[in-house]
Amino acid sequence: MRNFRRALFEQLDPPKWPGRGLSPLNAFLCVLILIATALAVLETEPLVTRGNEALFHRIEIAFGTLFLLEFLARLWVVPEGSDGPAWRCRLRFVLSPWSLIDILVIVTSFAPFIAANGQMLRLLRLARILRLAKLGRMSSAIQHLTHAIASRRLELGLTAGIALGLLVFGATALYLAEGDIQPDKFGSIPRSLWWAIITLTTIGYGDVYPVTVVGKIIAGFVAICGIGLIAMPTGILAAAFSDAMERSRKADCD
Amino acid sequence: MRNFRRALFEQLDPPKWPGRGLSPLNAFLCVLILIATALAVLETEPLVTRGNEALFHRIEIAFGTLFLLEFLARLWVVPEGSDGPAWRCRLRFVLSPWSLIDILVIVTSFAPFIAANGQMLRLLRLARILRLAKLGRMSSAIQHLTHAIASRRLELGLTAGIALGLLVFGATALYLAEGDIQPDKFGSIPRSLWWAIITLTTIGYGDVYPVTVVGKIIAGFVAICGIGLIAMPTGILAAAFSDAMERSRKADCD
Amino acid sequence: MRNFRRALFEQLDPPKWPGRGLSPLNAFLCVLILIATALAVLETEPLVTRGNEALFHRIEIAFGTLFLLEFLARLWVVPEGSDGPAWRCRLRFVLSPWSLIDILVIVTSFAPFIAANGQMLRLLRLARILRLAKLGRMSSAIQHLTHAIASRRLELGLTAGIALGLLVFGATALYLAEGDIQPDKFGSIPRSLWWAIITLTTIGYGDVYPVTVVGKIIAGFVAICGIGLIAMPTGILAAAFSDAMERSRKADCD
Amino acid sequence: MRNFRRALFEQLDPPKWPGRGLSPLNAFLCVLILIATALAVLETEPLVTRGNEALFHRIEIAFGTLFLLEFLARLWVVPEGSDGPAWRCRLRFVLSPWSLIDILVIVTSFAPFIAANGQMLRLLRLARILRLAKLGRMSSAIQHLTHAIASRRLELGLTAGIALGLLVFGATALYLAEGDIQPDKFGSIPRSLWWAIITLTTIGYGDVYPVTVVGKIIAGFVAICGIGLIAMPTGILAAAFSDAMERSRKADCD
Repeated sequence: MRNFRRALFEQLDPPKWPGRGLSPLNAFLCVLILIATALAVLETEPLVTRGNEALFHRIEIAFGTLFLLEFLARLWVVPEGSDGPAWRCRLRFVLSPWSLIDILVIVTSFAPFIAANGQMLRLLRLARILRLAKLGRMSSAIQHLTHAIASRRLELGLTAGIALGLLVFGATALYLAEGDIQPDKFGSIPRSLWWAIITLTTIGYGDVYPVTVVGKIIAGFVAICGIGLIAMPTGILAAAFSDAMERSRKADCD
Repeated sequence: MRNFRRALFEQLDPPKWPGRGLSPLNAFLCVLILIATALAVLETEPLVTRGNEALFHRIEIAFGTLFLLEFLARLWVVPEGSDGPAWRCRLRFVLSPWSLIDILVIVTSFAPFIAANGQMLRLLRLARILRLAKLGRMSSAIQHLTHAIASRRLELGLTAGIALGLLVFGATALYLAEGDIQPDKFGSIPRSLWWAIITLTTIGYGDVYPVTVVGKIIAGFVAICGIGLIAMPTGILAAAFSDAMERSRKADCD
Repeated sequence: MRNFRRALFEQLDPPKWPGRGLSPLNAFLCVLILIATALAVLETEPLVTRGNEALFHRIEIAFGTLFLLEFLARLWVVPEGSDGPAWRCRLRFVLSPWSLIDILVIVTSFAPFIAANGQMLRLLRLARILRLAKLGRMSSAIQHLTHAIASRRLELGLTAGIALGLLVFGATALYLAEGDIQPDKFGSIPRSLWWAIITLTTIGYGDVYPVTVVGKIIAGFVAICGIGLIAMPTGILAAAFSDAMERSRKADCD
Repeated sequence: MRNFRRALFEQLDPPKWPGRGLSPLNAFLCVLILIATALAVLETEPLVTRGNEALFHRIEIAFGTLFLLEFLARLWVVPEGSDGPAWRCRLRFVLSPWSLIDILVIVTSFAPFIAANGQMLRLLRLARILRLAKLGRMSSAIQHLTHAIASRRLELGLTAGIALGLLVFGATALYLAEGDIQPDKFGSIPRSLWWAIITLTTIGYGDVYPVTVVGKIIAGFVAICGIGLIAMPTGILAAAFSDAMERSRKADCD
């Protein structure tokens, strides 16, 4: 029994699996999570579920059972990972953010998903999509990204601040120029902000755009100046992430 | 009294606060500026202000008073920072660009904001948004960005010039191709410039686009060639800013 | 005869042509492929082919013959490149992916392209466009790109995973916010995914966008956060490709 | 006379002006070119020229005279720059591309710009916009950009080739998926190419987009894969340009 718990622990929470990959059990769980998420996504499409409600219900119960087993297994093996008394390890484990997501997902799997209606049903489904976040536990991606953000938090903060200021000034400029002509689109700064965000991220849906000559000149000026500044946080984040991965690769070789 | 002025000076204009952060007083002022700006933004939305005009008026007066106190405090403590006679320090302080923004913002806070109408009211509100620029005084972001721009002004100028030339040539090409077909959109080079800016920044609202085969071929060619050149200043600026931050971090360590 | 086969082999599959370029015969074949692809593209346009069906048919047969000759020549000279018995070299050559594309393209060239109709005809034409992939055999571009992707597969996988997760969460958020208001556009997560892809890649056609205040706030938030993360794989790939080319250039000099 | 020619030569074509800037005469000519181009742009707008035709005509003649004087001055001083007989230097100068632009611009300045109509008039105006290219003679930007492109021509060629191939495959995929549903937009590969260019450059006007489920899935896939590859030439070009400027700066210091 003791040995089995040890073996299971090494499968579920390996300190360092050879070859940087996932343990076989974790790889299987990843595939399970991806399939469950894909099903939860498809399930929201009426054209897919029509007539198959019972089937989807049964699949949902099956996945809920599997993830319940995974949670119980993790709860059982967690004392292997630290020295304290078993109950304290387990309590700390249950209260960790990953466990809270697990519990939420498992509970919503078993909730009768036909009873709930409209908005309530949608929130239930959101909980199921949250399963995708469980992948974060197994990968080091989120850790690397968090480190990358932390190591450049000053640059990111400054450029994000400048970008935010630019959004507000751009929105104010268009509010002044076109507030009277298109009151439903530029009639207030919050409304103009929608234009500023969609323009400076270069999405440009085309639902809101200036129509007067003055508005077009200001918008053109804001667009040319702003796009460079809006893109700066992206460049800094990409460079930081690249550096963090490079360092982690070197550390592995040593 | 002397000591209090010294302590206040060190809170308001610290030569170097330990840990690169803001002094407690400046951090409080930053939060104040952000809240005041957010309120000035919300205030322009009729759905928010309807029926709450008196409330917003009172809040505006309160913020105006706080920023007046801040300005007077800065005016009082400014001689601590230099050796000359106090009146000359104060005069120089009052005539600095930051102070002019401060004075403008404070005056507009107390101006009766119901009396003014339409365009005038909007300009008044713009002045309140300008408060956001006060943040620039406290952060080193604008300084870093200014340095980054200055250190690569040659590259930025050259690529900006090339980008500008490209905008004009693209606009001229579409004016030649579609000037007759869509005279209101491509009937002159200034009109075509709106298309060129919105296309080469990849915003693409969809209010103006070529419809003829020749126009589409030219536009496709301009788009493919142009986007690379338009994005170059952004890349150069991001690299320069990243370098400037790196140097500043190293200088801190030494 | 032996010498001619050797000379032909060195023209078709040179171990290393001086000056990094293509051998004269391969350069001629490249031009041939480009012309044939351009014709296959033009051929699909009714305005071009109307009345010229016979001409296009004859050109197609001519290109098919040339590429058949090329294939037979490659089949004949392939034993020059390795030591095993000739029939085994030839079998391995015929079963390689490049040869399968060759055979598919040649067969479809001779298929009567007037007989087939509609969807069938289109697939036939797709096969002709596939000729473009034959260029891959001659260039080292695909090899370099493959190496670049392989050397950073961890970063690319992680950022691609994060980007995918973001797409799903963004789509779910808009499904919750606007599923009732615009059921044909946001009525299910798969439908919302179309919005998420078109928004986070900053294409922004304008066929789908949020119309409620809550939807716009969520979409603005998703856009600002997401665009940086979506752009990260691009930056990493470009850096990796640049590095791979740099190394290849240095290796050439040594 | 000899000395004046020498002094003029050093103003017009300085071997190396101290401080990297332009000579006073060249700086004046730059401003002149910019003003003349701005006027040529404005001139095409009917709202601006209406009633001022005579004024614009006179301004045009004045600029034409100034640029004629500049051209004659350059023609006169050109033998100062080389050792051969004067007539040969002048002939070589007249046949250089810069001179051809000069002559074209001067001739069109004096052509009666009211006589010509419609398309002809537009081409005349294009010639005037070409003046902007004269700036290229004075700046080193185009030289730097040319060097940057030349030094990475292999990478740029490869990524441009991959991008081109991707455009063709994307267009073919949508032609297969939506050719029957939207024949005027995706009915042939050349028509689909307009969609592919506008989508993969992320412009996304919204005049053409897939409407079927299959078309949307293919388009989403093409968009996600393609945008990274399309952006690669830009990144490579920006890096090359940055490097070229860095080297030129270092060379200046030595």
